[in-house]
Amino acid sequence: MSLSSSDIPIKVEFISENGTLANQLANHIRGMVASGRLVPGDRLPSTRAMASELKLARGTVSSAVELLIAEGLFETRIGAGTFVASEAALLQEPQPAGSSDVVFNDTPTADIDPKISCDVDFRPCRPSLDGFPVQVWRRCLSMAASSPLSPDYGDPLGDIRLRTVISAYLRRARGLVAGAGEIVITNGSVHAMHLLAHVYLSAKSKVFFEDPGYPLARQTFALSGATLEFCDVDQDGILVETLPDQVPASSLVYVTPSHQFPTGGRLSLRRRHELSEWANCHGALIVEDDYDGEYRYDVPPLAPLASFDRTHVVYCGTFSKTMFPGLRLGFAVAPKPIVEAMASYRALAEYAPSAITQVALASFISEGHYERHIHRMRRIYRKKRRFVVDFLESNRLPASFLGLDSGLSGILKFDTNKPIADLCKELQKQKILMPPISRYWVRKPSAVNQAVVGYAAPSLTEIERGLEFVFQTLRQIQPSAVAT
Amino acid sequence: MSLSSSDIPIKVEFISENGTLANQLANHIRGMVASGRLVPGDRLPSTRAMASELKLARGTVSSAVELLIAEGLFETRIGAGTFVASEAALLQEPQPAGSSDVVFNDTPTADIDPKISCDVDFRPCRPSLDGFPVQVWRRCLSMAASSPLSPDYGDPLGDIRLRTVISAYLRRARGLVAGAGEIVITNGSVHAMHLLAHVYLSAKSKVFFEDPGYPLARQTFALSGATLEFCDVDQDGILVETLPDQVPASSLVYVTPSHQFPTGGRLSLRRRHELSEWANCHGALIVEDDYDGEYRYDVPPLAPLASFDRTHVVYCGTFSKTMFPGLRLGFAVAPKPIVEAMASYRALAEYAPSAITQVALASFISEGHYERHIHRMRRIYRKKRRFVVDFLESNRLPASFLGLDSGLSGILKFDTNKPIADLCKELQKQKILMPPISRYWVRKPSAVNQAVVGYAAPSLTEIERGLEFVFQTLRQIQPSAVAT
Repeated sequence: MSLSSSDIPIKVEFISENGTLANQLANHIRGMVASGRLVPGDRLPSTRAMASELKLARGTVSSAVELLIAEGLFETRIGAGTFVASEAALLQEPQPAGSSDVVFNDTPTADIDPKISCDVDFRPCRPSLDGFPVQVWRRCLSMAASSPLSPDYGDPLGDIRLRTVISAYLRRARGLVAGAGEIVITNGSVHAMHLLAHVYLSAKSKVFFEDPGYPLARQTFALSGATLEFCDVDQDGILVETLPDQVPASSLVYVTPSHQFPTGGRLSLRRRHELSEWANCHGALIVEDDYDGEYRYDVPPLAPLASFDRTHVVYCGTFSKTMFPGLRLGFAVAPKPIVEAMASYRALAEYAPSAITQVALASFISEGHYERHIHRMRRIYRKKRRFVVDFLESNRLPASFLGLDSGLSGILKFDTNKPIADLCKELQKQKILMPPISRYWVRKPSAVNQAVVGYAAPSLTEIERGLEFVFQTLRQIQPSAVAT
Repeated sequence: MSLSSSDIPIKVEFISENGTLANQLANHIRGMVASGRLVPGDRLPSTRAMASELKLARGTVSSAVELLIAEGLFETRIGAGTFVASEAALLQEPQPAGSSDVVFNDTPTADIDPKISCDVDFRPCRPSLDGFPVQVWRRCLSMAASSPLSPDYGDPLGDIRLRTVISAYLRRARGLVAGAGEIVITNGSVHAMHLLAHVYLSAKSKVFFEDPGYPLARQTFALSGATLEFCDVDQDGILVETLPDQVPASSLVYVTPSHQFPTGGRLSLRRRHELSEWANCHGALIVEDDYDGEYRYDVPPLAPLASFDRTHVVYCGTFSKTMFPGLRLGFAVAPKPIVEAMASYRALAEYAPSAITQVALASFISEGHYERHIHRMRRIYRKKRRFVVDFLESNRLPASFLGLDSGLSGILKFDTNKPIADLCKELQKQKILMPPISRYWVRKPSAVNQAVVGYAAPSLTEIERGLEFVFQTLRQIQPSAVAT
């Protein structure tokens, strides 16, 4: 018989000792998928046709097909039939790549978090998605999809509607006054730095970078060929006085003033002014990465650097933390000539983000859902953050939780002088992900007894279970640390 | 009175000679928008509140507001009130950029088509959107938006579901066998070349490029610092014998074999094999840009270069022509190490496209809508293409229409030896956009009597009106050309 109209022959030899007939049939079809003879989108013949062809009872064939559907290998589409599911591709062997004589450049492997199935995930920069208003978002997407299609390729600056509502939002929420022409929509804040690096940095440039700091931003700047120099940070953010007196042309300093990544300090107002003065004095740019500054707890707001210095600051924002990471939208606010240069460059690269998600996000913001969602999540994150602090206190655990004025993560500082990298490694084996702070240092770490704890994504139950496990494990590895 | 809760003072002096009161009020509010005191998203007070505050009849205030809504400056949201519309930002003066001492790199201005409002748009690479199944697409988007959100940032290779259905589609429709691991999702074909340029080209590389050819691809390769060399094309595509015997390491040749851009030739099977042999012999890569090869008319299919040479070919596809340009999705098929290097690089750039559009497109393809849509559009484009040929013949016009085996555009070759760039310039003044072929040449054009005519987007009526106007204008400019 032919399993589908595309002439894939099937011949099953049923062996009586080999389980039920239905199982044997399912096994055979599974093998055809694994070997690539059936691929996602291929349709199975009807159970009636298969039963008649294979001389089996129709119920037997149905059982086999139901098994394959339950496994997720096949899917039923009402009124159309049963098809190989797209997930089935994961079963398939990749095609041999062939022995190529083609040589290509060495690209550094981006320091991105691997996808690991884990029990408790304390990695930073991961928002909670539980409270996201999916129904409202679907409506915004649906509306965006019904606005008239355009034969144009889009605007490399980003959709004018989205840039306009971001302009209004920044004025309202951050006191940052920037016209739509000074905003470029990006795929996120790292993308903004990538575009900036291309239009601004040269091999002679220097990039002054926080240490510890955000690895992806660092790698993005390093890729441009500029020289990186590292600056100390304390609980108030980057130590501006450590910046040099002489800098080459086209240099920049990268800072995370709302919530230093990963230590969590907020750059004091005094340092903000000093930094701006330094940049003005040396004709250097400041990259202000405001990756999670929307979440601020019980402390007064501090003006973004971009709000009092528009000529030397490129402000980078992202919707990854306030919406969800897969949205892939963010923006940069910069002087108009820089914005235009970034758009020119990206017109020769990835061109522009998807029009639909931009328009949907513009509606979501302008209808007030965005700020309502942030407000709601701020309450939830405040509670989770409080929970960690209370848990440590009430159980008299030998650690404190720091860097909590804002953001989605804090620093768990253990009352020990020993490095806790081994603890984190042991935890990872047990599927508790909690990166040691040493991971974010380039130079020799000056603090080895700290770990970064993202508290936004895990539930309260997971946080409790995770922390219990952390200190149990610590007790086993460093009994002295817990005894004190 | 305060126009909104954010304390924007309004004081209107009504002057009796200055039009109706309603007009004066509308003018005043319009001015507040233009000056940026009211920005998109701001809410107007109720007509009742404004009437009482300004001591005007409520009907007068309503008339003013209705006028502003009709102009598109304001919009009503049911149950919420009247708000400054996002389009209003276009009225606003940009913020002064400030006199910056910041110097940035010179980025070439990408050769993209400007947005011009025009009567008939014959520019190439623009699909018709009339037949697009918007309802089905909305359903796919809505389904994608209801699949569970992930705290992950996505896969820099692109969503596995989309890569899987593309793998199946290529096998089915183009005879190109590639696993999901050999496919990287991009924002379009130029983006694929941009990523490839970064992982493969160096300053010592050479890029062999068709002349005339596709400007954006050329600029993308040029930006990498590689040396560009230009190759002749004839009615069968690139002249393979003009490629040199010696090439530096990490070189590539860029071709548009399905429908040479812009001349429209199809690369013959013999030349495909010669090209593959040349690449194998020199360890060079072939970039196969299949930008509109889904549309083929009355000619047998030709195997993509990638289908018989997987080690030296990077095949670039796009959904801009088969879906719509604003979707910003395409893909590249390449040997696995190249695909992985491209993904590594993009993890430090724009990271990944939006998850929602990728998943929605995967459903659209796997449910069969994609191929049905292509099939339907092929019939429509065939008809439009035929219409141009018939129009020229039946009116005995001094031109022929060439390069029509496939794609969405053809070459209008005039029976004159004189350059037709002036004709195209004159047409543009009259809002008929039809680029002369000279625009796509880098070296001295060898054919000056040709224009590129995209016939996909305009309607039959527009095509007729446009062509009538073209030959009328030609008659005025070059009477001799039409007299023959």
